[in-house]
Amino acid sequence: MKICRINMRNKSITYEEVKSEYMALGGRGLTSKIISEEVDATCHPLGKNNKLVIAPGLLSGSMAPSSGRLSVGSKSPLTGGIKESNAGGTAAQNLAKLGYKAIIIEDKPEKEELNLIKITSEGISMEDASYLKMKGNYETGDILREKFGKKTTVMSVGQAGEMKLSAASIAVTDTEGHPTRHCGRGGTGAVLGSKGIKAIIIDPGKTNEVKYHDKDSFMKASRSFSKMILDHPVSGQGLPTYGTAVLVNILNEAGGLPTDNFRNGRFEFAEDISGETMYELINKRKGNPTHACHPGCIMRCSQIYNDENGEYLTGGFEYETIWAFGSHCHIKNFDSIAKMDRLCDDIGIDTIDTGVAVGIAMEGKYIELGDDKAAIKLVEEVGKGSPIGRIIGNGAAFTGQAFGTERVPVVKKQALPAYDPRSVKGIGVTYATTPMGADHTAGYSVTANILGVGGTVDPLKKEGQVDLSRNLQVATAAIDSTGLCLFVAFAILDNAGALQEIVNMINAEYNTSIEIQDVITLGQEILKEEKEFNRRAGFTKAHDRLPEFFNENLEPHNVAFDITDEELDMTLEF
Amino acid sequence: MKICRINMRNKSITYEEVKSEYMALGGRGLTSKIISEEVDATCHPLGKNNKLVIAPGLLSGSMAPSSGRLSVGSKSPLTGGIKESNAGGTAAQNLAKLGYKAIIIEDKPEKEELNLIKITSEGISMEDASYLKMKGNYETGDILREKFGKKTTVMSVGQAGEMKLSAASIAVTDTEGHPTRHCGRGGTGAVLGSKGIKAIIIDPGKTNEVKYHDKDSFMKASRSFSKMILDHPVSGQGLPTYGTAVLVNILNEAGGLPTDNFRNGRFEFAEDISGETMYELINKRKGNPTHACHPGCIMRCSQIYNDENGEYLTGGFEYETIWAFGSHCHIKNFDSIAKMDRLCDDIGIDTIDTGVAVGIAMEGKYIELGDDKAAIKLVEEVGKGSPIGRIIGNGAAFTGQAFGTERVPVVKKQALPAYDPRSVKGIGVTYATTPMGADHTAGYSVTANILGVGGTVDPLKKEGQVDLSRNLQVATAAIDSTGLCLFVAFAILDNAGALQEIVNMINAEYNTSIEIQDVITLGQEILKEEKEFNRRAGFTKAHDRLPEFFNENLEPHNVAFDITDEELDMTLEF
Repeated sequence: MKICRINMRNKSITYEEVKSEYMALGGRGLTSKIISEEVDATCHPLGKNNKLVIAPGLLSGSMAPSSGRLSVGSKSPLTGGIKESNAGGTAAQNLAKLGYKAIIIEDKPEKEELNLIKITSEGISMEDASYLKMKGNYETGDILREKFGKKTTVMSVGQAGEMKLSAASIAVTDTEGHPTRHCGRGGTGAVLGSKGIKAIIIDPGKTNEVKYHDKDSFMKASRSFSKMILDHPVSGQGLPTYGTAVLVNILNEAGGLPTDNFRNGRFEFAEDISGETMYELINKRKGNPTHACHPGCIMRCSQIYNDENGEYLTGGFEYETIWAFGSHCHIKNFDSIAKMDRLCDDIGIDTIDTGVAVGIAMEGKYIELGDDKAAIKLVEEVGKGSPIGRIIGNGAAFTGQAFGTERVPVVKKQALPAYDPRSVKGIGVTYATTPMGADHTAGYSVTANILGVGGTVDPLKKEGQVDLSRNLQVATAAIDSTGLCLFVAFAILDNAGALQEIVNMINAEYNTSIEIQDVITLGQEILKEEKEFNRRAGFTKAHDRLPEFFNENLEPHNVAFDITDEELDMTLEF
Repeated sequence: MKICRINMRNKSITYEEVKSEYMALGGRGLTSKIISEEVDATCHPLGKNNKLVIAPGLLSGSMAPSSGRLSVGSKSPLTGGIKESNAGGTAAQNLAKLGYKAIIIEDKPEKEELNLIKITSEGISMEDASYLKMKGNYETGDILREKFGKKTTVMSVGQAGEMKLSAASIAVTDTEGHPTRHCGRGGTGAVLGSKGIKAIIIDPGKTNEVKYHDKDSFMKASRSFSKMILDHPVSGQGLPTYGTAVLVNILNEAGGLPTDNFRNGRFEFAEDISGETMYELINKRKGNPTHACHPGCIMRCSQIYNDENGEYLTGGFEYETIWAFGSHCHIKNFDSIAKMDRLCDDIGIDTIDTGVAVGIAMEGKYIELGDDKAAIKLVEEVGKGSPIGRIIGNGAAFTGQAFGTERVPVVKKQALPAYDPRSVKGIGVTYATTPMGADHTAGYSVTANILGVGGTVDPLKKEGQVDLSRNLQVATAAIDSTGLCLFVAFAILDNAGALQEIVNMINAEYNTSIEIQDVITLGQEILKEEKEFNRRAGFTKAHDRLPEFFNENLEPHNVAFDITDEELDMTLEF
């Protein structure tokens, strides 16, 4: 295992042994550690002093099920705080096969440049990529896979990353070679763009440096763990069939599907944009509703979504995206939403912050609520770099300021995702307190609040929400370090043996002897490190708050967000 | 003396007696106290929980020379911190004559409205002003003065305030009735706009509630103080002749005139935009180079600037404006700069943040460096509310984010004014540490650094800068509470008796017995209150920093900003 450091000013590429203290870290645990140790928290996120760290998880590249998640860490141009943004696709496994614990990209070119980083079994090299200037991720990926081989993983930025817009993402190609999996949140694409990098290609060829200290034990734990995932109704049935869009009807029923910029918890046209409707549509058009974003994923929540003519349109099309361009904007046309998902993937922008921004442009009366054609045009403008495109592409908080509107659902300037914090109060605690800015994946209380997974905590009452969010945030920080998809959490929460099997796999691969308590401690340590970075960057408790308007009552349950500041401040005190 | 509270939701107008603890306060001392006590520091600046406080100074309306400054306080939409923005013009004196210690505007209308507030000897009333929708300050003022009398003071917002852009100002008419004096900094115009107020007219008629406990003593002190002001070379000669533009050549000579977005300390065309050139131009076109912005100002640093045809174009045309649209943008055409000053006054936006934003649009290659015609067009767009206009109208920090550029000269998101902090290091300390965001008027170290007023502190060395800035920030907070123009500071700094005469005037008017030490204590208390508000709003020491790029050396003196973080953190510790 090694770490590679790429300096974009002097173009040096150096390899380092992994420090002993980094050995037990991977994914988010490693990216947050390196960013915290090496980056001045007060630096400009687009400046030479910021770094971008790419790290596969501890189990990435192994035969553990659904272990292909990638972590990218940086100081965020969107929030100004630390950021770990997590994606599927084929990058993490290929990096792990090549023996990379992390890639650290630092400094920036003197002048504007566009480079390609090549990571293969022959090492890492760099070449000019100016021929890809202002191309979208689809075309970029096609050109690079044509040139370097169809199986090559492409990580790239679209126009948004080149323009260094704060909602710019980093695309990662999926098993079909489509750039549908993204480090979406927090503008890591803008950081990669600021470093003068258009794309990173990864091709391990036949190389596979992933070794197992005790392969038999590993396989035994892996099989047991796989069974637990497949036996769980959410990860074994709901997700493979309907994808995450299965949540549309569930959240609508629960009164937690934010509609018309968080003015209602139910959308009259929820059925039109539901997972069930998507499933029918996909089947009718001969797409694929059940698709793995990386090899070895057994939950296969991704899909291939074809257009009216049966031609491929998009994939990796999530509940949060459907919500952001759907009920948030009062849009019910599934194909319009799918087109915007495709546009976001191509331009390289976070679907959540972009969709919320489009809704804020409606709030500011720039376009009309529910006007899907105008919404599509707005998203297209981001790729063109027009002034309105630059507004939308900088995310929801920025768009709110542009239009002088105060009803802007953001925490730490990052847009709230698809769960209303008043009727799913545990997620509200997570939005407010995670060091990442409003982020459902940082502590997904929807489990116990809505799905009855890992127990039941009444989503409308304040009791138990802080503990729920805290426990999930700790567990998530740890899972984000393993390379396992967060959706393994369903099995973990409902099956006492699942976490032990993860521990068993790690011990079997690395010849360690960690215990479950070490996993908890790891999660806590990661959160402490991230909070400490944010403190140095200038964050205080005043930033751990939801926008004021969440004290308004939400239909249909007539509930406000009533977790007190003092309760929020306790959440991440260990 | 009374305080009036105007509620913009229920339209109630109530009058209150002045609390005893407010009696000794005026101007900034009073606005900051009320904002700090009544406004939740974490509220949205454009929301119902923010307030706007308008207060004349302690000596406003009296016969003290140059005492017509007005303070407007609020939570700033630009910085997110507390804001006092200070303007000349005729409002402060007329409010004082009507016996108002402060006007507090609170809450906001349920729906979009445009109202006019009328303040006369008959009291305060409110009426619809929708006929003024999206009119500029010039037309608004003309209509209102036509309707309510030529001598009526008009405070108004232009299109920018109605659109709630973060750099929106509040215009105050001068002695000619022109809207040339502005509460420019920090977006107070957006707050007034968010309250549904287009304009406030003030007409005291023959009413004059300003009383003197001991008029003879007052007049004696006032005469003595006036003489000290007029005897000082800066306030008695430089300012009346050339206005503040006298500083162009001085700062250029000192290597402190920021040029091309702070890339150089000298501008090759400085002579073209100097105070001396302006003086000749004004005389040739039969304008007036020496004009008082409010009755009784004896420094008369304002002017009337006519266009090529001898027609009135603009006035109150400051050094900082000339710099922002001039050397900062590499523009040397005086008439182009004057047109942009006029546009800013009309649209109602801060000339500093707007000029710096235009330079940042050049940095981001949206328009070319030095292209004055394109620059004028950009400023015009703000008034039209187009996307690019909304970008520029939200100020320099916002524009920097829109264009993905990291070289953005702001502190607390407010644009740096016209003095390079590397070659005028004392002002750098002020920029970094004042609770207001980068603001030269908060502690104008240019005095001892450049002008040799109040002693001499070498502008290129770090020694003495922290003490200099601290002392000036304390004195300024106190002066901003008196209603006296800050330019009386030249006399105070060079004449040991001047501050005593201010104390004498206050004691003679109010029958108090304050001493010089009380003035110092007042200044410190104001700063403590402001810092504490910012702390509650989420500010930390990390916000008391200059942008990273000021560690680059500046020509011609080859100096970087080298005051350490620890030194900055000591500045406002009392």
